[in-house]
Amino acid sequence: MTKASGRRSRRPTMVDVAREAGVALSTVSRVVNQDPTVGPEFARRVQTAIDTLGYRPDEQAQQLRRGTSRTIGMAAREMSARNPLLAEFERGAYASGLTVFAASTADDVERERTVVLSMARRGFDGVVLEPIGPDHSYLAPEIATGLAVVAVDRPVAGPETDAVLADNAAGIDMAYRQLAAHGHSRIAYIGDHERIFTGRARAAAFRACLSADGRAVTGLVHTGETVQHRIDVAMRAVLSAETAATALVTGNVTTTFAVLTYLAAEVPPERRPALVGFDDFPLASLLDPPVTVISQDSMAMAHAALNLMTARLAAPERPLETVTVPVSLIARGSGERPPVH
Amino acid sequence: MTKASGRRSRRPTMVDVAREAGVALSTVSRVVNQDPTVGPEFARRVQTAIDTLGYRPDEQAQQLRRGTSRTIGMAAREMSARNPLLAEFERGAYASGLTVFAASTADDVERERTVVLSMARRGFDGVVLEPIGPDHSYLAPEIATGLAVVAVDRPVAGPETDAVLADNAAGIDMAYRQLAAHGHSRIAYIGDHERIFTGRARAAAFRACLSADGRAVTGLVHTGETVQHRIDVAMRAVLSAETAATALVTGNVTTTFAVLTYLAAEVPPERRPALVGFDDFPLASLLDPPVTVISQDSMAMAHAALNLMTARLAAPERPLETVTVPVSLIARGSGERPPVH
Repeated sequence: MTKASGRRSRRPTMVDVAREAGVALSTVSRVVNQDPTVGPEFARRVQTAIDTLGYRPDEQAQQLRRGTSRTIGMAAREMSARNPLLAEFERGAYASGLTVFAASTADDVERERTVVLSMARRGFDGVVLEPIGPDHSYLAPEIATGLAVVAVDRPVAGPETDAVLADNAAGIDMAYRQLAAHGHSRIAYIGDHERIFTGRARAAAFRACLSADGRAVTGLVHTGETVQHRIDVAMRAVLSAETAATALVTGNVTTTFAVLTYLAAEVPPERRPALVGFDDFPLASLLDPPVTVISQDSMAMAHAALNLMTARLAAPERPLETVTVPVSLIARGSGERPPVH
Repeated sequence: MTKASGRRSRRPTMVDVAREAGVALSTVSRVVNQDPTVGPEFARRVQTAIDTLGYRPDEQAQQLRRGTSRTIGMAAREMSARNPLLAEFERGAYASGLTVFAASTADDVERERTVVLSMARRGFDGVVLEPIGPDHSYLAPEIATGLAVVAVDRPVAGPETDAVLADNAAGIDMAYRQLAAHGHSRIAYIGDHERIFTGRARAAAFRACLSADGRAVTGLVHTGETVQHRIDVAMRAVLSAETAATALVTGNVTTTFAVLTYLAAEVPPERRPALVGFDDFPLASLLDPPVTVISQDSMAMAHAALNLMTARLAAPERPLETVTVPVSLIARGSGERPPVH
């Protein structure tokens, strides 16, 4: 600690520049802040001193004075997963002169809180958040004191914020109807835990499809942790003799991967059920059969999030807004197979 | 700007707490900094005022006083790509009480510079960097004034820093020998641009394999941008009648995906060359044939990077260190096919 402090203090300060240039501290400050009233001779002397000492303005100190950081935090569920939304948001923000720093919440409620509060206390102007838990009341005082928050993928629970959501219900409905249109009458759903908003929304939409079709839900909806073991159990249940489903809808990419892994290991190709996965993924078209998916428009979601964020920063009192972004079905083959009985 | 400042100023300050508690500002400061010399009655009064006003210490101001931020920046080539190294580094750092903020450089030299300098000027203690360009002299003054820098995947060019590298040469050698052991004598390499360190290191290692085997390099090594169009051109060249290669080594995942896409579209299954890809990827085992890869140990690389970073922060003057992490071959089928002539 002592050492680190010692090293930091070697960084030249504005006071050093003033001494080197033989001018008042306020003159250095005016030059650094590009005040046009500084005479050219003084500006030159200060600039020479800045170059000589290698002085660089401290963004933290500037930020404390300015009260705005032009920095947006991105608290994403998982940065290691392919996250085109994050990449696209970053690209757009960078182009607008905003700095984006991302941290992952690792699907952990406590870690989300730590990460978001640490962004707020570092003076970030706003946070784009993929919310996890059922209660975000910790955000209320931050929002009250000026933090702009935009929720993506799921809404914040507790204080209300701007939000960008995918049209989960429409996506599940498309998946179900695609399978039904290809002759399937026993269609099962395997998806994420229902404590997660998207897991809950998609499972609910699937149950609604079954009900609208006059079908019983029993044994056809399996939600929970998206780990291979749990998916294996669900697969054995939905493919078991009595009630075998001939088609599957998977609720997210992790589930799709686990289902494909199970099928490759346990079910001969000609016996495999039809499949529509929620969310597109690389290589989907190179698998056999190529995988039909519901594709979220990550680009549109990223642009919507950036628009909501910049609008909120410009006009903190504007009414809250939720943007629902349409999804589309990409038919590749796995969802267009006839039932195998 | 004015509006944002106006909102920020609503956040209660230490002065507000002192006024509310009816104590001196220095007393509040001592309580906030857990000075044990404050009497319990004063501590209680200050705490009550803190709770009443919802005062939260400003981490930026504290950091300016402390001279250390316990914050590490991660400047990654691409956050949207599956980046287990980043996720694992974050996990380990979080467990050690460090905050990690990541930003992507998007393979853009200017953006790398902007991102890293913005981390340095915000008082981050260190930066873990996947370096891009051929010249990192912009880092020298930052390192001189105390920024800890650890390069991952490639070394920094210019100032010397700690670094974690994969054993690229050993990986290429394993890939080449696996194909040779399965009867291939015309083996081609398609990989990343040689302006990128890993692209350069892997292509050089491949040329060395050919030379050691007494084979001509001509027409067998194709490096450049990893975009589908360029890979298509390279594939047509290596598979053309005169000099057709019967086996391929791909230099990174993006290249592997593009090669698989080309093969799926253009070459009937029975005519496809054997293939070993550098870097493992999800679903590799579900493709037909399953893809043999050289697997980098991202976990080991992340742990090495975190160890180097914490060691550097604790002892800024310690000698520089480069850790080379072994790679392994995962044989799945595509690299074990006999030559098709």
